[in-house]
Amino acid sequence: MFSILRINTATGAVKKEAFASTEYLLGGRTLSSRLVSREVPATCDPLGRHNKLFFCTGVLAGTTVSSSDRLSIGGKSPLTGGIKESNAGGIVGTRMARQGLRCIALEDAPQDDAGWKIIVIGRDKIEFLDGSFLAGKGVYDKSDLLAERFGKKAGCITIGPTAEKLLLATGIACSDPHGVCSRYAGRGGLGAVMASKKVIAMVILDDGEVEPQFLDQENFKEGSKKVVNLLKANPVSSLFTKYGTAAMVDICQALKVLPTQNFRHGVMEGAEKINAQTMYDTIKARGGEGKTQHACMHPCAIQCSNVYPDKDGKLLCSPIEYETMALMGSNLCLKDLDAIAEMNRIANDAGVDTLDVGAAIGVAMEAGLAEFGDTKAAVRLMEEVRHLTPLGRILASGCKIAAKVLGVRHAPHVLGQAIPAYEPRGTKGMAMTYLSSPMGADHTFGFTLRDEAVPTSKEGKVELSKKFQVIGSRMDAMGMCNFVRYSVQNNMTPLLDLIKAHYGAEISEVEFDDIVKETLRIEHQFNTDAGISHHDYRFAETFYEEVQPETGEKMDITDEESLLARQW
Amino acid sequence: MFSILRINTATGAVKKEAFASTEYLLGGRTLSSRLVSREVPATCDPLGRHNKLFFCTGVLAGTTVSSSDRLSIGGKSPLTGGIKESNAGGIVGTRMARQGLRCIALEDAPQDDAGWKIIVIGRDKIEFLDGSFLAGKGVYDKSDLLAERFGKKAGCITIGPTAEKLLLATGIACSDPHGVCSRYAGRGGLGAVMASKKVIAMVILDDGEVEPQFLDQENFKEGSKKVVNLLKANPVSSLFTKYGTAAMVDICQALKVLPTQNFRHGVMEGAEKINAQTMYDTIKARGGEGKTQHACMHPCAIQCSNVYPDKDGKLLCSPIEYETMALMGSNLCLKDLDAIAEMNRIANDAGVDTLDVGAAIGVAMEAGLAEFGDTKAAVRLMEEVRHLTPLGRILASGCKIAAKVLGVRHAPHVLGQAIPAYEPRGTKGMAMTYLSSPMGADHTFGFTLRDEAVPTSKEGKVELSKKFQVIGSRMDAMGMCNFVRYSVQNNMTPLLDLIKAHYGAEISEVEFDDIVKETLRIEHQFNTDAGISHHDYRFAETFYEEVQPETGEKMDITDEESLLARQW
Repeated sequence: MFSILRINTATGAVKKEAFASTEYLLGGRTLSSRLVSREVPATCDPLGRHNKLFFCTGVLAGTTVSSSDRLSIGGKSPLTGGIKESNAGGIVGTRMARQGLRCIALEDAPQDDAGWKIIVIGRDKIEFLDGSFLAGKGVYDKSDLLAERFGKKAGCITIGPTAEKLLLATGIACSDPHGVCSRYAGRGGLGAVMASKKVIAMVILDDGEVEPQFLDQENFKEGSKKVVNLLKANPVSSLFTKYGTAAMVDICQALKVLPTQNFRHGVMEGAEKINAQTMYDTIKARGGEGKTQHACMHPCAIQCSNVYPDKDGKLLCSPIEYETMALMGSNLCLKDLDAIAEMNRIANDAGVDTLDVGAAIGVAMEAGLAEFGDTKAAVRLMEEVRHLTPLGRILASGCKIAAKVLGVRHAPHVLGQAIPAYEPRGTKGMAMTYLSSPMGADHTFGFTLRDEAVPTSKEGKVELSKKFQVIGSRMDAMGMCNFVRYSVQNNMTPLLDLIKAHYGAEISEVEFDDIVKETLRIEHQFNTDAGISHHDYRFAETFYEEVQPETGEKMDITDEESLLARQW
Repeated sequence: MFSILRINTATGAVKKEAFASTEYLLGGRTLSSRLVSREVPATCDPLGRHNKLFFCTGVLAGTTVSSSDRLSIGGKSPLTGGIKESNAGGIVGTRMARQGLRCIALEDAPQDDAGWKIIVIGRDKIEFLDGSFLAGKGVYDKSDLLAERFGKKAGCITIGPTAEKLLLATGIACSDPHGVCSRYAGRGGLGAVMASKKVIAMVILDDGEVEPQFLDQENFKEGSKKVVNLLKANPVSSLFTKYGTAAMVDICQALKVLPTQNFRHGVMEGAEKINAQTMYDTIKARGGEGKTQHACMHPCAIQCSNVYPDKDGKLLCSPIEYETMALMGSNLCLKDLDAIAEMNRIANDAGVDTLDVGAAIGVAMEAGLAEFGDTKAAVRLMEEVRHLTPLGRILASGCKIAAKVLGVRHAPHVLGQAIPAYEPRGTKGMAMTYLSSPMGADHTFGFTLRDEAVPTSKEGKVELSKKFQVIGSRMDAMGMCNFVRYSVQNNMTPLLDLIKAHYGAEISEVEFDDIVKETLRIEHQFNTDAGISHHDYRFAETFYEEVQPETGEKMDITDEESLLARQW
């Protein structure tokens, strides 16, 4: 039996429902996408009262299993116009599990002129508090004020000032283990959806008493250890332990797919100035609060996160991830980790997704609003975002809108969501994945890059992308961190055994993959019902017409091919 | 035999083709939409090389028939993503006819960094001249420079600085009889399409020698007189002769459909300050260059245009039309004709559509960027448009994009094109028309307003809208001014007789309407092929959820009903 807490944001009515089904068992994206599909009219205004926002924990949340407490947030996306699940690390999943909640649903919406609310969820109460004192403040300030009031161990969820203004590239920030709202469900504009319900923060108190009940505690304990060993033995996750995702800079530069100069190039001269080793050395040399290894949730055996310190050793930004280093770094021809960290920090404070806004700044630079490589100008543009100037709002609307307003044709997105940090003309596997995601261009979805024999060729990429779409989606399907996938991609038994030991539920690998594929089917159906046509799953025409100089490649995937990769 | 001049804007290659078919005979939208449908891939980037721009004259262009020289400009719209025909008065149609051209097609596109060109079309030559001296200048300056160089009698076509930046709400300006480029094909962003081909101006010289050949000159002369008599006898067109389209202010106020305060209301207190009588009296009192009656082309028996003078009697703006008075006036709660004229003038100079930008300013005011009713602020916002500031670019992108960037849900548009000056909740006939147009919300398409027994009811409005869709489209189909329709809406024989006397082509009323309906079918098919779904033909959700206070009405037309009104 799993509980969903339904909160009507217009009336304040609250009800708790109990369910016993596989989708509630698995939680995560399995649950969020089914709820969106069933309860949100596909053609509704994402910022209107018919949209809902679902916060779902996964099947192993609240246990001792490494990396199992991701929070899946689902709704209709104002950025893509389609279905969205965006997930975040941090401690909210853990706190929800302790309150016995598999899902919190924010429903309906108050009038536009209603005041901001904080929803507080504790063992014996659900309260709506006045949240006006948070309005307009940055996420760091909001986070401090929430921690001060509710304690650093409370699971807090908040949005930035850009989301309050309903801008499209805004995310939802969740508490990390230090009580700082720095773990973002960044993509798809769900921050604006939360704002449209006039909920400026949601707090899950640390007074929950629900303990996980194990049908076979011994086996669970053993299985949990096995997962840790698998993670430690896996070369990819071990690399992430040392270097974090920054390890990708050199890999992408070598493959000529490092986004550079608004996705015009795949190689940046001087990329080593922002690579993993430089970041590692910088953090080590500066010491202080800096950390090359850091966990976004507990327990985690990977700890790919980091704490990047300023020159005095004070925390500047945590974490800095490869995606940001590319979209706010190489893509803007910036070769300065301090500047990237500063931009990342401002983005976190403003409440925007670093990928979507990084891509928008690339577009703005191509439009001539600043020079590529101009570090100061790039930071200044981020300050415009934070201060909600007209230009800042353009950038916080993501690269598709920014490109329209600034008259740039080479807009790096699919379905309005910015392409992540792998130039698609140089990796047709990732390109196929971008074109296949129901969520807009996404790298966590079907990560083919490490497994492409000939990255520049589209041959066999429908099948390859589909294979990795399933591998990646398995993790989302149960609320696990995406990086666990490397250790179980050929054998999901260790995780399925844990589900069995925990709940007694036997799910075979085939059954599990059927659930994963059914989720994809449901998601694509939602998009179709929302009016997204199969011609919308395309890159900007310039990607098909202009050669990426380093690989000599154009985009050559047809609508028919990408459609195959979306069929399940 | 009718000629189409095809100009490849990338290579400079030019070829003239001759055709003898009904579509080339009728010209206008009949021709432009068929050419777009056949030659432009529906899913292409409207600003890329696969789009084409067709300038078509109508079947009676160059003759002595009143109001028959409209220029239809067709292409794929960057504003709506669908097919577009936007037509303008002025003298270009006449000049094209004298050069023996039914159509000029701008094809392909040069590289982004190619220089601006002026294309000059004369009796014996087609030249590409350097147009860089026009770049960045306002349309009035461009117009003066073109007139200076090519004479005031040349038919000039140019774009504003906003179009040079590829912004979405930009139009194409055509010479009026005084040699001023003030007659706009304003809607759908075709200005940006022209800019994407790096054509900053096109000039049809006044050296054409092709005279219309009449199979039955006597009958043609008689028929031409009959049309003048019909126009003069018709009460609607006679009203327009005295007051211009401004006559609609009082009518719409009485019907409670005068767009007010970003389409939140249908009545503006003090609307008489901007009505037709006030405008008439003001123009008469100021004298000087002011004119209450003025022809946008010759010959014209309606002369609905005007010249609005400033306090010293100097031309401030010509023409000022009802649509602008509503979208840039009542919709912003402005009650000052001078301010509206000033905004209109700046819009013309900047090269933007007054409806789309007026609606965007309404959205900006709702977002709190200025107060409704603040005349100075409204003019200042137009200056931002003219100066291409970030906010100006937002506004010049039309109200759909402006609403996204500024976080406003009540965005008054269909398919991205701003709703014209009839609040749709109060007139379900016009609402049905907005939802049925393949071009985005449009008032020239199926004008039901004068024929609705119960405007607030949707009963019977599918049929009523369809009836007037045909009546309105007949005029576009042959390059006639829309206002001729009042005189022939029950009997097209006078016009069809003229075609017969001119060319010997016998087209029955039924055959003619079949052509008109086939055009609509083709246009809707293009949109479907472009990925526009039937759910896209909707108003913003707020129109369905919130009551328009004066009529007590919400939008209640379903997707199924509007689909019926789009089926031919």
